[in-house]
Amino acid sequence: MIRHQVRRPRGLRAGMYVAITALLSSAGLLLAPATLAAQDGAGDLGFVLNTYSFLVWGVLVMWMCAGFTMLEAGSVRSKNASVICMKNIGLYAIAGLAYYIIGYGIMYTDVGSVIGSLDFFYGPSAEEVALLGGDQGAAAAVVENGHAVMSDWFFQMVFVATTASIVSGALAERVKLWAFFAFTAVLTAFVYPIVGAWTWGEGWLYQMGFTDFAGSTIVHSTGGWAALAGALVVGPRWGKFRRDGSIKATPPSNIPVVTLGVFILWMGWFGFNGGSQLALAGVADAVAMSNILVNTNLAAAAGVITALCTSRPILGRVDLFATLNGAISGMVAITAGPNIDNPLWAILIGAVGSLVCMVGLKVLEARRIDDVVGAVPAHLFAGIWGTLATCIAAGGNFVTQLVGVLSVGAFAFSVSWILWMVLDRVMGVRVSRSVESIGQDAAELGLDAYPEFVLMVDPDEDDDFRDAG
Amino acid sequence: MIRHQVRRPRGLRAGMYVAITALLSSAGLLLAPATLAAQDGAGDLGFVLNTYSFLVWGVLVMWMCAGFTMLEAGSVRSKNASVICMKNIGLYAIAGLAYYIIGYGIMYTDVGSVIGSLDFFYGPSAEEVALLGGDQGAAAAVVENGHAVMSDWFFQMVFVATTASIVSGALAERVKLWAFFAFTAVLTAFVYPIVGAWTWGEGWLYQMGFTDFAGSTIVHSTGGWAALAGALVVGPRWGKFRRDGSIKATPPSNIPVVTLGVFILWMGWFGFNGGSQLALAGVADAVAMSNILVNTNLAAAAGVITALCTSRPILGRVDLFATLNGAISGMVAITAGPNIDNPLWAILIGAVGSLVCMVGLKVLEARRIDDVVGAVPAHLFAGIWGTLATCIAAGGNFVTQLVGVLSVGAFAFSVSWILWMVLDRVMGVRVSRSVESIGQDAAELGLDAYPEFVLMVDPDEDDDFRDAG
Amino acid sequence: MIRHQVRRPRGLRAGMYVAITALLSSAGLLLAPATLAAQDGAGDLGFVLNTYSFLVWGVLVMWMCAGFTMLEAGSVRSKNASVICMKNIGLYAIAGLAYYIIGYGIMYTDVGSVIGSLDFFYGPSAEEVALLGGDQGAAAAVVENGHAVMSDWFFQMVFVATTASIVSGALAERVKLWAFFAFTAVLTAFVYPIVGAWTWGEGWLYQMGFTDFAGSTIVHSTGGWAALAGALVVGPRWGKFRRDGSIKATPPSNIPVVTLGVFILWMGWFGFNGGSQLALAGVADAVAMSNILVNTNLAAAAGVITALCTSRPILGRVDLFATLNGAISGMVAITAGPNIDNPLWAILIGAVGSLVCMVGLKVLEARRIDDVVGAVPAHLFAGIWGTLATCIAAGGNFVTQLVGVLSVGAFAFSVSWILWMVLDRVMGVRVSRSVESIGQDAAELGLDAYPEFVLMVDPDEDDDFRDAG
Repeated sequence: MIRHQVRRPRGLRAGMYVAITALLSSAGLLLAPATLAAQDGAGDLGFVLNTYSFLVWGVLVMWMCAGFTMLEAGSVRSKNASVICMKNIGLYAIAGLAYYIIGYGIMYTDVGSVIGSLDFFYGPSAEEVALLGGDQGAAAAVVENGHAVMSDWFFQMVFVATTASIVSGALAERVKLWAFFAFTAVLTAFVYPIVGAWTWGEGWLYQMGFTDFAGSTIVHSTGGWAALAGALVVGPRWGKFRRDGSIKATPPSNIPVVTLGVFILWMGWFGFNGGSQLALAGVADAVAMSNILVNTNLAAAAGVITALCTSRPILGRVDLFATLNGAISGMVAITAGPNIDNPLWAILIGAVGSLVCMVGLKVLEARRIDDVVGAVPAHLFAGIWGTLATCIAAGGNFVTQLVGVLSVGAFAFSVSWILWMVLDRVMGVRVSRSVESIGQDAAELGLDAYPEFVLMVDPDEDDDFRDAG
Repeated sequence: MIRHQVRRPRGLRAGMYVAITALLSSAGLLLAPATLAAQDGAGDLGFVLNTYSFLVWGVLVMWMCAGFTMLEAGSVRSKNASVICMKNIGLYAIAGLAYYIIGYGIMYTDVGSVIGSLDFFYGPSAEEVALLGGDQGAAAAVVENGHAVMSDWFFQMVFVATTASIVSGALAERVKLWAFFAFTAVLTAFVYPIVGAWTWGEGWLYQMGFTDFAGSTIVHSTGGWAALAGALVVGPRWGKFRRDGSIKATPPSNIPVVTLGVFILWMGWFGFNGGSQLALAGVADAVAMSNILVNTNLAAAAGVITALCTSRPILGRVDLFATLNGAISGMVAITAGPNIDNPLWAILIGAVGSLVCMVGLKVLEARRIDDVVGAVPAHLFAGIWGTLATCIAAGGNFVTQLVGVLSVGAFAFSVSWILWMVLDRVMGVRVSRSVESIGQDAAELGLDAYPEFVLMVDPDEDDDFRDAG
Repeated sequence: MIRHQVRRPRGLRAGMYVAITALLSSAGLLLAPATLAAQDGAGDLGFVLNTYSFLVWGVLVMWMCAGFTMLEAGSVRSKNASVICMKNIGLYAIAGLAYYIIGYGIMYTDVGSVIGSLDFFYGPSAEEVALLGGDQGAAAAVVENGHAVMSDWFFQMVFVATTASIVSGALAERVKLWAFFAFTAVLTAFVYPIVGAWTWGEGWLYQMGFTDFAGSTIVHSTGGWAALAGALVVGPRWGKFRRDGSIKATPPSNIPVVTLGVFILWMGWFGFNGGSQLALAGVADAVAMSNILVNTNLAAAAGVITALCTSRPILGRVDLFATLNGAISGMVAITAGPNIDNPLWAILIGAVGSLVCMVGLKVLEARRIDDVVGAVPAHLFAGIWGTLATCIAAGGNFVTQLVGVLSVGAFAFSVSWILWMVLDRVMGVRVSRSVESIGQDAAELGLDAYPEFVLMVDPDEDDDFRDAG
């Protein structure tokens, strides 16, 4: 059993760390034992840098949870803002525990398998414990792993939380708090880890050559499929889609908070994509990481400008919300291949990602699917585009990429759909019409988000809940 | 006089940096002078990594001040939100200057002493100044210190600010702006540094074997004791505790802002605990730092889930505010020993910390002590639990830990209480009833936090201030 | 053509990286080829650290854009908060693309020139592409550059965005969205890069000995001059300056959001100034970076306390907004020389910067220049003070510094003024009185910032727009 497996999505750079170590060893042989210290020093510092990279970038990815929370809390109506905060702090906690107890084991401890292994309670390696206990002899075995075991766990854990965050936004304002938490537990303990086992865990998709550098499909589309399944089962908010075919606008209740959320996501994405280089010890790692941050930024910028310039023809006005989602969908799209050499590709991929998101939003609305923050267009549709675009930009195999997209989609969507249906039977996934009318904050938590501010009365509310009688 | 003393709370890892250096030196002797360069390179890079770790993690701890600010600004009623922002930006500035002029000198320049030394205006070492001035010969002496002098100062300074931040939340909505600032200056220049001198400054508690890795007692309980003393002297808000024994609910005025604050604290805590490893140069440091971040996260997550599941039986409803405080109290509890090997301990310590916080809140309320944000239960009570739990999890001496908790408590509480009493005589610590009724924003700053939003009239206000005449 | 030029504002430390490399090489000659690996390892890690420093600190500088956004969104009246969010997300995107396509080429690819070169679409070096493509032979040439090419680009790009952010705040509430974007494109593609070419690009000001470590003049004053020119051309908000000589107070609409913005800026500034050391490979770099963070923090703290204590005599009340701007102007002032040895200088420079800002605000108001957030006093006036103060503190040439301040000012102000005038002719830079009365959110975006909150009616509004007919 390989306990300390790390995902290695890039064929290109594979073996570099090993090669450097080997080179150092051969030099060591010539001068042994006198230079051993210096040589260990170099290897040690490489280990330190790899580990530190996971930790620093991982903290930024954790920060994305705050970004999703702000984006969602500002996007929902005031009467549901407390509950969405609760869902987000709760999902991050649940994701962390579920991935610790079960998820990481499924994803990485049985490398190359189809559904992973039930290897519970991942923890530091025996060598690491020995080293921390004062056994210097364990250092060599620890260093051989390339990075501290738990630094990789930490970095992978924050990715799981991202997947769950995508779901909460799409289903806001009507999914029950506890049903959402139950879904989150299964998503982060099993669904995402199994997708991960197929790919970063070197399972069958990895072996086919499927490539998804930081998770356009593995993270964002998986979350998007789960959200789409939920949106179908839970159904749209009352009054969103009217009998006359018109659609009720539900503008964000707090624009500065939404904007803050997008800036947080933009900042955190540097960790998401940059840390996915998975190493910092070598020159090539540092170069690649730099390119990754630049490409991520350019894709987001291109997404913003595309939405800025095209939202009027597509959506009927210069749309701030579409512009903010332009940044997100641009980054989702580049996430499958942020390490491409030519930044012009990043601009193109990001711009198209933003277009895909805007058009996707129209398509969803036409199908009467209610997605409060546009999570499905931004994360699923742009994620599919990005995964396919990678092979256009970097020369992979289109069919393989398509197989990856479809198989992850089929699995994530169908399992999520079944899960939502089961939860609906067991506990109900949708709040009652009266709760939806009052707002989940007052009904489920007894805590308004802005208890002192006088709020407008929604003029359509009676219409929205006419049948609620 | 040792100017560049760094705290070393762990016996285990002590001497590791020295050992590596020694190893490199011995190798150097065999090959001298040819390998000197390579060997210096390794030592240099270790120095760089130690320093950089202090800086990056220190920035995250500074960011916690924004977290406290948001948590508190969203928790108080709108009429006091500007003043709490002023208190927090002010306390961070005061703490920084006070610690520069006096505090750090007390804490670290007279190592092993009881009350530190009055060594003012800490600054770069002479060797560092020489090196920056172009004297390459000074490099060896600089490197010998293990890290840049001011990087440690920076990291310690942001900890002082945390202590002061804890106080502002508990006393919100009624403590006078300038009285609070005066207290902050003394707390950060003298009280906290003296506690620090006893412990991280290798004073008598350190020599007894007291262990508190990142400051459950030294930082959080000290702040909590100061807050408790203040709450007793300042007294509860008018109307909080009614004559009929009932307690007035004072819900947060802005939930998304509170939630943001907690996410910021969660993010910053990775720096708080991770940076407290105090070094990054060695493999063991990197491994320990990884475990620390993971344990910190798991403790917070366990605190969240515990509050989520038990707030209904304990507090009467599924409580968002308790859940958010669950994250904080979980992290406070693990802060004394985040470097334990087995993550399961972190989950247990965090979960119990959250319970301690919830029960503690009830106890405080029963004693008619008014703590606006629950700072005393979250930082003091959970901090005591964490300091004692460390020796359960990692096998220290329970009696020593208890002596540390009690002596820090006796000192911090009594000095704080005297100080609050003196301030009350000199300048008054409590705003007048009319100021409290109007709100501190309008009365003390002439600046409402949300001047354009129409606010609800508090229906109990007349009752609350009935005696105000 | 030197493609990978990095700015080197410090004479002192020049050649240190080269010296270390040379030292390692000489050692390598004695032991060649056996120690080559170890020696390359050291050089490689230096390259990695330099690169990583650019990336991590660069991310913090990017985060400053969120800080400006929050500061501005909370400072404007609610009816203009959505548009200011749009301007800020848009300017960051535009700055990134403009600097990629044109700006960086002007600033750095024709080193020592007067107006830079039109070298479009900056990207990774050929050696880096070869290395990433698997050509290990390219590694040496890559390492020779000292850092990854795009890591420097990333760090420089986020500085451009800062310059543009300064403008948006000053002109808030009345400048047209698209005129602002057009100005931003030219500012970031040409104006700032030409100033940069004169200085960090080793042009004529650099050759004269002008020193501006992290950009008090180059970044902050350039932005301030552009804002001042804009404020003059666009004119004050209706009703701001009344016929009777009185000035209408326009308090911030959301104080917690403003405060959050300032904390974000404070946090990000550690990256702004710390990263401007431009290297992390050497001991002197790490020492300097530590001093820089400490000085930046002390200058900000001194700015806060100065405003706290003097805002009552200067502005008539203890002023939160002035206190928050005290932090900013303190940091702007120290930005020209944050690497001074004695922290007391930082305190003095920051304190005076805060005074300059407060007095400057009075001067601007007396001249009936409307600057919504005080950007011109905080960034331009304090920036001038800081640039001159540097030579007082560190012993530079006052005349040279003055020449730098004046020539950058003459260029940035006059070009910006012409540009604003041209834009006014071409598309108009000012919204109509009716749009200003309704608010830009409803008029330009059709999206209120807080659509559900009931807002106060501005009692002066009729007066303000009396002539609007």
